[in-house]
Amino acid sequence: MIPIGHVETPWATLAECPRNGRQPENPPLCHAVVLPEFIPGLSSLEGFSHLILLTLLDQAAAPRLRFTPPFDDRERGVFATRAPWRPNPIGMTVVAFEGFESPGRLVIRFLDCRNGTPLLDIKPYLRTTDCVPESSMGWLEQGVG
Amino acid sequence: MIPIGHVETPWATLAECPRNGRQPENPPLCHAVVLPEFIPGLSSLEGFSHLILLTLLDQAAAPRLRFTPPFDDRERGVFATRAPWRPNPIGMTVVAFEGFESPGRLVIRFLDCRNGTPLLDIKPYLRTTDCVPESSMGWLEQGVG
Repeated sequence: MIPIGHVETPWATLAECPRNGRQPENPPLCHAVVLPEFIPGLSSLEGFSHLILLTLLDQAAAPRLRFTPPFDDRERGVFATRAPWRPNPIGMTVVAFEGFESPGRLVIRFLDCRNGTPLLDIKPYLRTTDCVPESSMGWLEQGVG
Repeated sequence: MIPIGHVETPWATLAECPRNGRQPENPPLCHAVVLPEFIPGLSSLEGFSHLILLTLLDQAAAPRLRFTPPFDDRERGVFATRAPWRPNPIGMTVVAFEGFESPGRLVIRFLDCRNGTPLLDIKPYLRTTDCVPESSMGWLEQGVG
């Protein structure tokens, strides 16, 4: 795995990051910065309103398979959460794409990770396969999340 | 990056895989098989109707930053497609989760990858952050996809 770039956000440390990029009332502008050698891979990205960013959560704590989430009262398996301390610390975030500020510099909203987090991949968000409005959210809907 | 398990699908080779796991009229049952040491991380997964699987596309061709997709008439950047030959060949699929056949053996639908593909991560699908029905799909909606 090699970084294709990094993200720029207002959050300098993990502790400052929002639990969910959509929670802040006025989600700040963030950027995804792609290394020059990968810029050709961005062509035809214009017109997608949303993207999937995969990031390397390189400052996550060591993997914990079970833990008690904040505001919860019992242990959950890490694969039933979006916590960063996963066996493979890859973050996945659906972001709004607001265009290119310059080649290789994407303007985005709804990121939730630390400034400087390495970027592994950018994928177009496809509502035909990635959007499931009727999905249910297990323990997160049982009044504890 | 270490595999946490693998997936079982009806498709033995890349050539047999559907372009999109939702295209087959009767999407076949597939399985995600998690290695014993990671099974504790699956607790509380019950009740989520959909999951995000990250897979290692270990048989993908060498990265190509630009290529002409099937049924298209011009080159696109790989980051504007879901093609497997990416700089970091990580596949992301939203699947329906139909429960555990046994501990560590998940029944799923809508996978699109080759039998035996290594599994890197399982995340709960959260419609509150992962679902954007109003999203637009760029070149894929311009009559060429």
